[in-house]
Amino acid sequence: MTRSLSPDVTRQAVDSYIADLLRERADDAAELGESYEQFWHTISSVVMAGGKRIRPHLTVIAYGELDDKIVPVAAAQELIHIAMLMHDDVIDQDFVRHGVANVNGRYQKVYAAFVDEPRRTHYAYSAAVLAGDALLSESYHAVHSSGFDAEMIRRVSAQLHRAVYEVIGGELLDVEAAFVTDKVFSPLSIYRYKTSSYSFICPLVSGAICARKSDETIAILTDFATNIGIAFQIQDDLLGVFGDEAEFGKTTTGDLREGKRTLLVAAHEERMNDEQREHFSRFGVDDATDDQLSQIKKDLEDSGAKAETEHQVRMYFDKARAALDQLRADEMRQQLEALHLKLSGRRA
Amino acid sequence: MTRSLSPDVTRQAVDSYIADLLRERADDAAELGESYEQFWHTISSVVMAGGKRIRPHLTVIAYGELDDKIVPVAAAQELIHIAMLMHDDVIDQDFVRHGVANVNGRYQKVYAAFVDEPRRTHYAYSAAVLAGDALLSESYHAVHSSGFDAEMIRRVSAQLHRAVYEVIGGELLDVEAAFVTDKVFSPLSIYRYKTSSYSFICPLVSGAICARKSDETIAILTDFATNIGIAFQIQDDLLGVFGDEAEFGKTTTGDLREGKRTLLVAAHEERMNDEQREHFSRFGVDDATDDQLSQIKKDLEDSGAKAETEHQVRMYFDKARAALDQLRADEMRQQLEALHLKLSGRRA
Repeated sequence: MTRSLSPDVTRQAVDSYIADLLRERADDAAELGESYEQFWHTISSVVMAGGKRIRPHLTVIAYGELDDKIVPVAAAQELIHIAMLMHDDVIDQDFVRHGVANVNGRYQKVYAAFVDEPRRTHYAYSAAVLAGDALLSESYHAVHSSGFDAEMIRRVSAQLHRAVYEVIGGELLDVEAAFVTDKVFSPLSIYRYKTSSYSFICPLVSGAICARKSDETIAILTDFATNIGIAFQIQDDLLGVFGDEAEFGKTTTGDLREGKRTLLVAAHEERMNDEQREHFSRFGVDDATDDQLSQIKKDLEDSGAKAETEHQVRMYFDKARAALDQLRADEMRQQLEALHLKLSGRRA
Repeated sequence: MTRSLSPDVTRQAVDSYIADLLRERADDAAELGESYEQFWHTISSVVMAGGKRIRPHLTVIAYGELDDKIVPVAAAQELIHIAMLMHDDVIDQDFVRHGVANVNGRYQKVYAAFVDEPRRTHYAYSAAVLAGDALLSESYHAVHSSGFDAEMIRRVSAQLHRAVYEVIGGELLDVEAAFVTDKVFSPLSIYRYKTSSYSFICPLVSGAICARKSDETIAILTDFATNIGIAFQIQDDLLGVFGDEAEFGKTTTGDLREGKRTLLVAAHEERMNDEQREHFSRFGVDDATDDQLSQIKKDLEDSGAKAETEHQVRMYFDKARAALDQLRADEMRQQLEALHLKLSGRRA
């Protein structure tokens, strides 16, 4: 039992399911043409290049075992995640994810033989938009392909729908927070919508539905998921600025240049002195130099914003831990405690 | 019976369903913030601005009546369509659809107060990417919310999945056909994937599944749908170049400037003389002048490409008509014959 719930075993099962699915789509795509076949192979390369499959493992943990029925439901969580990342990369104009080229990054290279900038990049983005659409649709389809009864499939699909609805809201507010100046953005509600919902609540509740857990257990899991999601996202924003660039897999000045209004930035704005405010005028400016952004990075430490944000991370992890105390001391609780310990100590 | 199958009655029922759904999403979105609420209102304005709801009516025709159960399944066809149009507009860099501003067109105006070009347009595209994602997800959810039994819902969802899979392939090849020069593109297979699949096959087969039609009837409907879809798309490309700009709702030089490799263009390339070939060098060139594109437009007539393409349109409409002859002479067949007559005579 414990062995079947190891993250590695889940990852292997989910990777194998997704790899088979993408190979089948590529084979079918040959009917339309080589380009469409290549599209699915490209998606496969990107999907198989990395990812810890934390979300599928949450589903398996809440379900209680790893069997053939739960694998498609677990994989669906990852497919939604990857779909949203592909569109997020278009929105953030990123070409690298987990240290390797993403869909638009790859298509930019493929199209280099045929078309110049700026059309090349635009077409590469177009391919990434379509790739995300394809995986969003595959996510629903995976749930339908699982062997659970119709009522469970309906309930799990409703979870996916809610998760997509919330992550889109979080993403939109995240985008607008970078430049819309007449509205107050609460980083915390963005985090709940952007991260808690589809990265933690949906995977856990989907697994719990399939295991026929009680409404009370589902409510506790939702509380845990909400708080650990917020903690995880604040931590992610910290790592985005202070993490090891190679380990974290993206440039640490990107968020500052993009003008991402994180909790870290909000804490800094409350605290900064005049000199820091002067430096901060280069925040969110396209042509800010690396030196200017490194200065802001240093200021984030000096102002106490970094320490305050680290405090918030610990607080939300503590809330998540407290939710677990309400669960029966069973295998699921042990697994969630182990996951909590792992995430609260992550460095990348 | 006949009255309940009028396109207008379907349109009213589907519009009312979609309007209620979008209002509910906007109300829920207020919890996250005004921006997300506004996002759903914007989607609603765009969706309600136009559209003949041909796809939902196909579902109703194949189902045989308009009742509360079929409306969400019919609406799902339109939601997928709108989702794909939103992403198509991002890919084609269009800001107007059906003569009014689309999602990115509207967001470009909203964001004008806050951010300069080129970031403004990029963020507007980002909102349109998210809007398309939202409606793709709503499409699956609508099918789940219908009152049909689980097995039907599963079969209809599989149709949606197949339609999304095919339309993405058609769209990708359509994009690449504009600039990838080392591959042979067949406009006809692109048309089958891009148009027949989700605009005709999926709506008709979804309705037929819900009405428990036989596999034989579903096969005939698929044949009809494939051919009428190809005819419709060839006609659409003709109207895109030769249609009335105001009536058609988009600029008639757009496709020529974009370098869209339609059947019309393929027919022209086979026929053009040296002078026309010289003019044609401005096809698919970003900074081609309106005069140069108007010359190409004239050449398309002179070379006989337009006449040949019009012949193809008639041929595929005839094939679609022949498929109908295999159906029993019932209400569904009458309705499809009427639709066939209407589409084959359209001007915009």
